[in-house]
Amino acid sequence: MISLAGGNPDLTSLPLTALGKSAQAIIAQTGQSALQYGAGQGTEELRTQICALMAMEGIIDASPDNVAVTIGSQSALDTITKILCNPGDTILTDEATYMGALGTFSGYQTDVQPVRTDGDGLIPEELELRIRALQDAGKRIKFLYIIPNFNNPTGITLAARRRDRVAQICRAANIFVVEDNPYGLLRFGGERLPALRATNRRGVIYLGSFSKIFSPGLRIGWALLPPPLVQKFLILGGSSTLCPPALNQMLVSAYLRDFDWQAHLAAAVATYQLRRDAMLAALDRCMPAEVTWTKPEGGFFIWLTLPKSIDTHALVHRALDDNVAFFHGAAFLPVPQRSNQLRLAFSAIPAETIAVGVQRLSRVICDAIGMAGGNAAQPARDAGTDPDEP
Amino acid sequence: MISLAGGNPDLTSLPLTALGKSAQAIIAQTGQSALQYGAGQGTEELRTQICALMAMEGIIDASPDNVAVTIGSQSALDTITKILCNPGDTILTDEATYMGALGTFSGYQTDVQPVRTDGDGLIPEELELRIRALQDAGKRIKFLYIIPNFNNPTGITLAARRRDRVAQICRAANIFVVEDNPYGLLRFGGERLPALRATNRRGVIYLGSFSKIFSPGLRIGWALLPPPLVQKFLILGGSSTLCPPALNQMLVSAYLRDFDWQAHLAAAVATYQLRRDAMLAALDRCMPAEVTWTKPEGGFFIWLTLPKSIDTHALVHRALDDNVAFFHGAAFLPVPQRSNQLRLAFSAIPAETIAVGVQRLSRVICDAIGMAGGNAAQPARDAGTDPDEP
Repeated sequence: MISLAGGNPDLTSLPLTALGKSAQAIIAQTGQSALQYGAGQGTEELRTQICALMAMEGIIDASPDNVAVTIGSQSALDTITKILCNPGDTILTDEATYMGALGTFSGYQTDVQPVRTDGDGLIPEELELRIRALQDAGKRIKFLYIIPNFNNPTGITLAARRRDRVAQICRAANIFVVEDNPYGLLRFGGERLPALRATNRRGVIYLGSFSKIFSPGLRIGWALLPPPLVQKFLILGGSSTLCPPALNQMLVSAYLRDFDWQAHLAAAVATYQLRRDAMLAALDRCMPAEVTWTKPEGGFFIWLTLPKSIDTHALVHRALDDNVAFFHGAAFLPVPQRSNQLRLAFSAIPAETIAVGVQRLSRVICDAIGMAGGNAAQPARDAGTDPDEP
Repeated sequence: MISLAGGNPDLTSLPLTALGKSAQAIIAQTGQSALQYGAGQGTEELRTQICALMAMEGIIDASPDNVAVTIGSQSALDTITKILCNPGDTILTDEATYMGALGTFSGYQTDVQPVRTDGDGLIPEELELRIRALQDAGKRIKFLYIIPNFNNPTGITLAARRRDRVAQICRAANIFVVEDNPYGLLRFGGERLPALRATNRRGVIYLGSFSKIFSPGLRIGWALLPPPLVQKFLILGGSSTLCPPALNQMLVSAYLRDFDWQAHLAAAVATYQLRRDAMLAALDRCMPAEVTWTKPEGGFFIWLTLPKSIDTHALVHRALDDNVAFFHGAAFLPVPQRSNQLRLAFSAIPAETIAVGVQRLSRVICDAIGMAGGNAAQPARDAGTDPDEP
C-alpha cells in the first residue's frame, strides 16, 4: 500500500541521538519542573523564542505576553472558536480547507461558508461580496479562517498583493482573521511572503506550530493574540487542557537554543522539494489530459481536479484495491457536497514510491474517466511500468 | 511566603536520572514514532496498561478499545461536556468541587447545580430529591460530576455503601455519572473502595490521570467510556487536540513497564500522609474552637469551616500580607456565593513548613473572628512561635 493520503512531516533529518540526550538532561537536571504543572500560558523562554520565530515570517512586534502555548495549533483553534462563536455563528474559509479545522467548527455547531479562491488564493472581491450577502441575510460572521501559505489541501499560496486587502476587508466588516500558518517556513524557493499578521496587529489571530518544522508528536503550537483576547483565551484554554506539557516545551526550547535547527529544517525542506518535484513529474507523465493540478511552492500537498463527472469519494475504495491511498476532496469542503477533486501528500514518502503511487492512481482515474464518459480511458501520456506489480 | 493553596504533587520520590535515560532511549531508538503524529485514541500499549491500573480500583472489565488517552483528565472532561451538553443543560456536582471542572462547565454555558453532601460525601436521598425537583422544573440534567475519593477541595470520600446507590439513582433518571478519580491510589490506610464504575458499566464515564500518581507535566490522562460514546468522544476530542503526545505516552508506558512505580508511589503516599498528619496536628494546635475541618484518608486537601460570619474571600489578602496562601471556598462552589470555608493543600510542602503556614493562618482567622464577633480573638490553643518571624 502506498499512502499519498497522510500529511505527516518527514523526521529523518532530526538529530535523534542528540535530542535524546537533551531530553535526558532536562529530566535528570530539571525534572522537578519538567514533570510538574506549569503556567497555562506556557514557559517564558519558549514564548520568547516563538516571537523570534515569527519574526522570520515578518511579524516583528510580537510580545511574549500575547503568546499562548497550546496543544498543537489544533487546541489554539479550538479555544478561539469557543471564545468567538455561539452555535449558528458563521465562519468563512477558503473554498477548500483543513479538515481538522472543519471538525473543530462543526463541534461548536457553527455555520461554515466558503469564499471563492483561484490559483492566487482567496479572491478579495469575492470575500467582500460574500460578507455583504451573509450580513444582509442576518448572519453573524465571527472570523475568516485562512491558511495563507501552501494551503492544506490545495497547496495554493495567497498572493502577496492580496494579503493586506483581505485583512482590511475583514477589519472593515468587524471580522477577525484567524491566520493558520504551519507551513510558512517550508518554502522551496523565492522570498517568504509576510504573514497577514505582520501589518495587521489588531484584527489578526495568528496560529503557529512546531508540528511541521520540528515534531508533531510533541504537540506544541501557539496563538499570537490581540491583547484584548489574551485573558479570555487563557481562561478558556486552561479549562480545556489546564497547561501545555512542561517537558515538551523545554525540549522545543532546547532544540531552538542548542541545535542548528535551521540546518535541519533546510534539509527537510530540500527533501520535500525533491518529493514535490517527483510528484509533479509523475503527474505529468501519468495523468490523462482531463486532469489538472496545483504546483505548490512549499508545504506538503498537491490538489488534483478531475472531470466534473467524477466523484472522487467513489474512487477511494477502488484506489485502495490498487494499493494506493489519497484523500477525496469532499473531506475539505465546508459545505458537504460531491467533489471532483482530491488531495495528494508528498511529504511523507520517498520520491520513487511517490512515482509508483501516482502511476497506480492514474490507472484508477483513467478507468473512472473511461466509465464516466462511456469511452475508452484516455491513455496516460507515458504509463511506464509499475515495478511493484507483475 | 508559604503556599497552602496549590495542589501540586510531590515529585521528589521520582527516579529522575533513570527516567531521563528512558526518555533518551525512546527518542534515540524510536524517535520516528515518538516525535510523530499518533493515533487520536492513544497507543495500544498505554491503553492496555491503563486497564491494568483501573483494575486496582476495582474496574476489572475495561477494554483498551473503550479507553481514550487525553491531555490530562481535564481535556477528557472538556470533551465529555462538549459531547453531552448544550448551553443551558444542567450538570450536578458535589456541594463543593474541583474549580477546573467548574471552569470547563462554565465554558459550555451549562447550569451547574450542587447536591448536598456530608462527611460521607454526596447524600443519595438529596440526589434523588434534587433530580426530581430539577426535572419537574423542566431542566435537562446531563450528568453528575463526582470526585468520589478524597474530593478536591474537601478531602471527603464517598462512603462505600453510597456508591452503587448514587450510580443507580442516576441510571434510573437517565443521567450519566462522570467519575473523576485522580486521587484513588493515594490512600493512607485501609481498603481501597471500588470505583462507581466497577459495578456500573453502562452509566458511568470514568476519568483517570497520571498527574497525581506520576507526573502532571506530561499531561496524560484518560477516559473509560461506555461503548456507545467512544466514536463521538474520539471525533470531538480529536477536534480539540488531534492526538495525545506520543513521547509522553511512551514515557508513561516505560515508567509503568520498566520501573518499580508502585514503590515510588508508596514513597510519595507516605510523604503525603506525614504532611496530612502535620497539618491536622497544626490545625488542632493553632485553630480557634470555632473552626472545624475534614480529616481526609488520602489525597491532597483539607477543608476548613469557619464561623458563618466570616467570608474567606476577604481573608485571602490578609493572609498574603502575613505570607501564607490558601484557596477561599467560593472558588469551588457551583453557584457563586459567599463562603465561610477554605481549602488547604498539604501535598506540596514539607511538614515543618506546613506547621508554620497553619500557625500564620490561625492568626489571620483569629483576628477575623475577633472582628466579626466584636470580641477579642479566640486565642489559639497553643500559638507557639513562628520561627520565620521576629
